[in-house]
Amino acid sequence: MTVLPETVHPVADPALEQAVRARLDSLTKPPGSLGRLEELALRYCLCRGDPAARIERCKVLTFAGDHGITEEKITPFPTAVTRQMVLNMAAGGAAVSVMCREAGVEYGVVDVGVAGGEFDEVPGLLRRKVGEGTANFARGPAMTAGARDAAIAVGVEASAVPGIDLFGIGEMGIGNTSSASALYSLLLDSDPTATVGPGTGSHGDLLERKRRIVADAVTRHRTEWDGSPLDALRRVGGYEIAAMTGLALGAAARRVPVVVDGFISSAAALCAVRVQPHLADYLFFAHASAEPFHREFLAREGIRPILDLDMRLGEGTGAVPAMQVIRQAMACYHHMATFSSAGLAGGAGEGSPPYS
Amino acid sequence: MTVLPETVHPVADPALEQAVRARLDSLTKPPGSLGRLEELALRYCLCRGDPAARIERCKVLTFAGDHGITEEKITPFPTAVTRQMVLNMAAGGAAVSVMCREAGVEYGVVDVGVAGGEFDEVPGLLRRKVGEGTANFARGPAMTAGARDAAIAVGVEASAVPGIDLFGIGEMGIGNTSSASALYSLLLDSDPTATVGPGTGSHGDLLERKRRIVADAVTRHRTEWDGSPLDALRRVGGYEIAAMTGLALGAAARRVPVVVDGFISSAAALCAVRVQPHLADYLFFAHASAEPFHREFLAREGIRPILDLDMRLGEGTGAVPAMQVIRQAMACYHHMATFSSAGLAGGAGEGSPPYS
Repeated sequence: MTVLPETVHPVADPALEQAVRARLDSLTKPPGSLGRLEELALRYCLCRGDPAARIERCKVLTFAGDHGITEEKITPFPTAVTRQMVLNMAAGGAAVSVMCREAGVEYGVVDVGVAGGEFDEVPGLLRRKVGEGTANFARGPAMTAGARDAAIAVGVEASAVPGIDLFGIGEMGIGNTSSASALYSLLLDSDPTATVGPGTGSHGDLLERKRRIVADAVTRHRTEWDGSPLDALRRVGGYEIAAMTGLALGAAARRVPVVVDGFISSAAALCAVRVQPHLADYLFFAHASAEPFHREFLAREGIRPILDLDMRLGEGTGAVPAMQVIRQAMACYHHMATFSSAGLAGGAGEGSPPYS
Repeated sequence: MTVLPETVHPVADPALEQAVRARLDSLTKPPGSLGRLEELALRYCLCRGDPAARIERCKVLTFAGDHGITEEKITPFPTAVTRQMVLNMAAGGAAVSVMCREAGVEYGVVDVGVAGGEFDEVPGLLRRKVGEGTANFARGPAMTAGARDAAIAVGVEASAVPGIDLFGIGEMGIGNTSSASALYSLLLDSDPTATVGPGTGSHGDLLERKRRIVADAVTRHRTEWDGSPLDALRRVGGYEIAAMTGLALGAAARRVPVVVDGFISSAAALCAVRVQPHLADYLFFAHASAEPFHREFLAREGIRPILDLDMRLGEGTGAVPAMQVIRQAMACYHHMATFSSAGLAGGAGEGSPPYS
């Protein structure tokens, strides 16, 4: 797999951790009182391998692709919505584009596999189409190994933008909750009927149909699957999912952490972690999606996401406010006064009475 | 009580709610998929009584005051820390000041009752001292009715800054978790041993002492308490707590919502709601504090806070990231494309196939 970036560096570094904790405890607050913000600041510095790490530039990327599984009529929307939404994202009208502007986060949308032909050149749209949507994974593999590698390479390439201190990943693709559910089922050896949820608008009979079709497909693929995350991606994944996997692998190889949006992004992150276990330390899970299995996935993996706002839009919309929280953590870490600079008595290890 | 502002307007307005929901459903996303962000946008518009309400200016205020209860040695910190931290806040070195800068939120700290004499004039510090700290509520009422009204008036005055679209309230005051615990006990008729937690640094024997002293004080005050929230404030409250109550009352009377920070701010909010029940609709509870009773209070009142980040610093530090989430909600509400503006098929009630 020449497409995959070099090794992901483990983040553990006791001396660095001690230095970061010492700075956190020197700030004018009771030790630990910023709660998860302190943990986020520590994790961020560990990822960068630098106790003076700063977040100047954040970038959210929405990877888009279509899914052959939609032939099975498991979603109320036509594939054409993917294409329309990509243009809406590039034009700044989608939720994720609005939220990035509000937050001062850079943004781009990447066509990895949207059906309907090549897009015209549009600002904010990166054209890297690998195919006109995947094949129907209910009938066979979603893509060839070559197409999967090309899609992963799109993500690796996107991670190579110099100067980005924090990435966020999101997606757009009608049918991609089915693909993500199938990936969870294979990689976690879970019953597909548990991993399938309503996604966007599949309720009642439609949900039952989606469950049955995904479950049947997973059962068939499982017998031939070689057990690797990359083969799972090829069989039931999507171009945009493979690209997010590539983004995570590429960013982590450069020691840039990645904020993972929701249900589908997390499936891509899971693939990436299965390829490179150390990569887990570079991921910040943004929020618990309203898609039911997402919460179960997070619980199983022992992950507590940053936010829990009942969002289920995808695109990267959960990643943006989570990035704002991480930036707040780093702002406190760098810009708060210390006990000595503020002339305050106390602070950890600075005598009595400590403000602790 | 001439100090209290006029009536708080109920927010319920079915026509307005319908208009806001219609706009939310016209935006290029599946209806409801922004989850709590949609609910926040709706609530914000209802508070303002305006479907075109915008958030341009946000302001966080930290109200500061000292507490006579510290004579009982229920906290490891000297009262002098309150004063030092007020100067640190005004100078921009405290967590809340850093976070406001990062978020583009206006900020000020208000001396309502810090001990140690008048502060010099300093930018960012509003000098409205009502007293040199409260009296020890273990020995008698914390303040006179006149001082309480003066402290409430400080908050009402602060709410009158023109042009603020969203307030955040926080506090600084060594000893004030004891005061807040006593307020919760009186107003919710709760066992004081349940409402008292470690606050900042009261663990082990110190926590047991704090519990016993607050419980004894609540038991004594309860026999003479007239049952009103204002008499509770006078007996066991603090100047900064009364001022936050006043800020909430004043802001809500102007239909400006208030983001309530943590354990102590919520006690002030509870007093305000008991004075004016309609005020509850104007409050956005920022986060679940790590102070144990805060989560129980929120659950009892049926409040789901916006964030849950294990923060327990106070100052208003939880209010700032919560404001950022509310601003994201309003950014989406105003700036997302609609199905018709983006030329997308669908949207609620716009024919088939809906993106819903």
